Amino acid sequence: MDARIIKRRIKAIRYRLKKEQIKSLLVTKPANVTYTTGFLGDDSWVLITNRAVYLLTDSRYTEQAKNQCPLCRTIERDRPMVETVAELLKKLKLVRTIGVEKSISLTAFESLKKHIKVRPKAVANIIESARRIKDNSEVAAIKAAAAIAAKALKQTLGYIKPGITENELAGRLDFQIRKAAAINSFGTIVAFGPNASRSHHQPVCRKLKKNDTVLVDFGVRYKGYCCDITRCFVVGRPTRLYKKACVAVREAQTAALKMIKAGVEITQVDAAAREVIGKYDLPVYGHGTGHGLGLEVHEGPAISGESKGKLQAGMVFTVEPAVYMPGKLGVRIEDDILVTEKGCKVLSTSEYKGIDEIVVL
Amino acid sequence: MDARIIKRRIKAIRYRLKKEQIKSLLVTKPANVTYTTGFLGDDSWVLITNRAVYLLTDSRYTEQAKNQCPLCRTIERDRPMVETVAELLKKLKLVRTIGVEKSISLTAFESLKKHIKVRPKAVANIIESARRIKDNSEVAAIKAAAAIAAKALKQTLGYIKPGITENELAGRLDFQIRKAAAINSFGTIVAFGPNASRSHHQPVCRKLKKNDTVLVDFGVRYKGYCCDITRCFVVGRPTRLYKKACVAVREAQTAALKMIKAGVEITQVDAAAREVIGKYDLPVYGHGTGHGLGLEVHEGPAISGESKGKLQAGMVFTVEPAVYMPGKLGVRIEDDILVTEKGCKVLSTSEYKGIDEIVVL
Repeated sequence: MDARIIKRRIKAIRYRLKKEQIKSLLVTKPANVTYTTGFLGDDSWVLITNRAVYLLTDSRYTEQAKNQCPLCRTIERDRPMVETVAELLKKLKLVRTIGVEKSISLTAFESLKKHIKVRPKAVANIIESARRIKDNSEVAAIKAAAAIAAKALKQTLGYIKPGITENELAGRLDFQIRKAAAINSFGTIVAFGPNASRSHHQPVCRKLKKNDTVLVDFGVRYKGYCCDITRCFVVGRPTRLYKKACVAVREAQTAALKMIKAGVEITQVDAAAREVIGKYDLPVYGHGTGHGLGLEVHEGPAISGESKGKLQAGMVFTVEPAVYMPGKLGVRIEDDILVTEKGCKVLSTSEYKGIDEIVVL
Repeated sequence: MDARIIKRRIKAIRYRLKKEQIKSLLVTKPANVTYTTGFLGDDSWVLITNRAVYLLTDSRYTEQAKNQCPLCRTIERDRPMVETVAELLKKLKLVRTIGVEKSISLTAFESLKKHIKVRPKAVANIIESARRIKDNSEVAAIKAAAAIAAKALKQTLGYIKPGITENELAGRLDFQIRKAAAINSFGTIVAFGPNASRSHHQPVCRKLKKNDTVLVDFGVRYKGYCCDITRCFVVGRPTRLYKKACVAVREAQTAALKMIKAGVEITQVDAAAREVIGKYDLPVYGHGTGHGLGLEVHEGPAISGESKGKLQAGMVFTVEPAVYMPGKLGVRIEDDILVTEKGCKVLSTSEYKGIDEIVVL
């Protein structure tokens, strides 16, 4: 991670803290630790003060921390995290209230209250709200993750043949991701036929049949950043209903994409997609139309009918309308887009999308 | 999950709640939700009262909940979780304090305080302490996970050849796990040569060389239960030092296993393993000698020098002594064992353990 980028982030966070009259912030959420330091290891916290950024880690990660976070003062702890924080605060002679991320567990927060002498004040969304707008390095990382995903899927297509199980297909795809030096951003979903009507279906031993359908929802995490993509395939000849659902879902996605531009109400994007599904007289999906993604595979902004606020340039989120008909079919197309001043850019490549790309045996 | 097992667990938890003078408990930790209901989905909470067990889930999981949890009253929520809890409490006319698991996030706890009319009291370890002692069904699930792991590793051995990368080997192994209708219990660690000296090394593009060493630390989750296994291999001819480390680590593991029996102080198990490594004049590992495992890959009891208490029959944990010499080597052997009245049973098969199983090219 470029040191200048981290410096800029810390500056913005300090500005925000000043506004909230908080002198220092204890960062405990893993994605926020990465965002403020560039550190990609686990089990570490960060203390941001006016003067410095401290990374509290343990011996497993000291070497990694020194490489990944040249701007941080790395502290190798040899006791429980909370005690290490208490000692650091004492050494720094911090006497004011410190901010603590509200996403912390109640266990850890109560333990902090016991061990530290200053008052911990729970604060929400200081870093999350900064993370909603991606900088160029973040957009590039998500795009790189999406490129790995597209390539991995392409390399897996040849295995989509009658007889393969959902599990095996998921495993083949995950292998290609791993081979590309990346990891899954969440557990790969592979659903054949009517199984696709459950949006979070877990792969089972169900075998692919002739004239069957395939839904693949998967993601790659690369340099900490996630992509999240869904594609549907038909093996052989699709039913009329399936074709109709594919056409409707694609049209719904296109309608949503056309709506996206800085300044537009988020709810309008959601409504645009749903309207198309309704127009086709198909059941409108129960989940949101999309979710932000970045260091987490689900983060702000949510794209739904309840979303508040307007789109801003630099937001990155999924657009994933769907049609679910239990016992019959499930179709979902999901891409990752970047909001710009004039519209949007699709970060996930648009190959292999829906009905056009029928895999013929 | 057998309904009788769930009934027995709920009975034990209610007994414990009564002792703590808590009428009902809100279960929010995913592993505890599974333990008290058999439910294997995500994003769901459980309310245990004197009279019933309620599973609060959403439309994605309603069907699954009804299949997996015949004893529960399933509530399909259509609003935020906290509001659903508030409504249920109102309907049940619960007026007393309710227990809330302390592992909950501060955000959720504060939101609960705002929405519900009864006082939420944070309680710790009610269910975790029950989970420390495994019943037969749990032991069987861990053993089944370990059997899948052993088979997957065996199927992957043929790929251990010069030129393969750490990433690719990890991917090959994960594929076999997925093909067996199981998933990883954590991200597979594959470390070649000196990379193995970092206990949490993340696989990279490093290629296997002639006369190289391989450390594989991986686990399988099956029916919700985890195993966690580490094996070391030598490709070609090992150095004297590597051989010595392997002999020491294996002897350390054997010494620890011999110490295990219901009633023994946990620290004695840890000390037995460390003593052997010290006797060989090799550096003693910095991490614990083991950790409990079950629905989580890390749970109680921890096996370390700071552990309190004695072993009890039914505990399941890893025994994983190691030798790390940065820049030179890393050797760790990890098995999963069950404590019995008279000793212990190794649940992970003991094939392919250390130096004896040199993979010759």
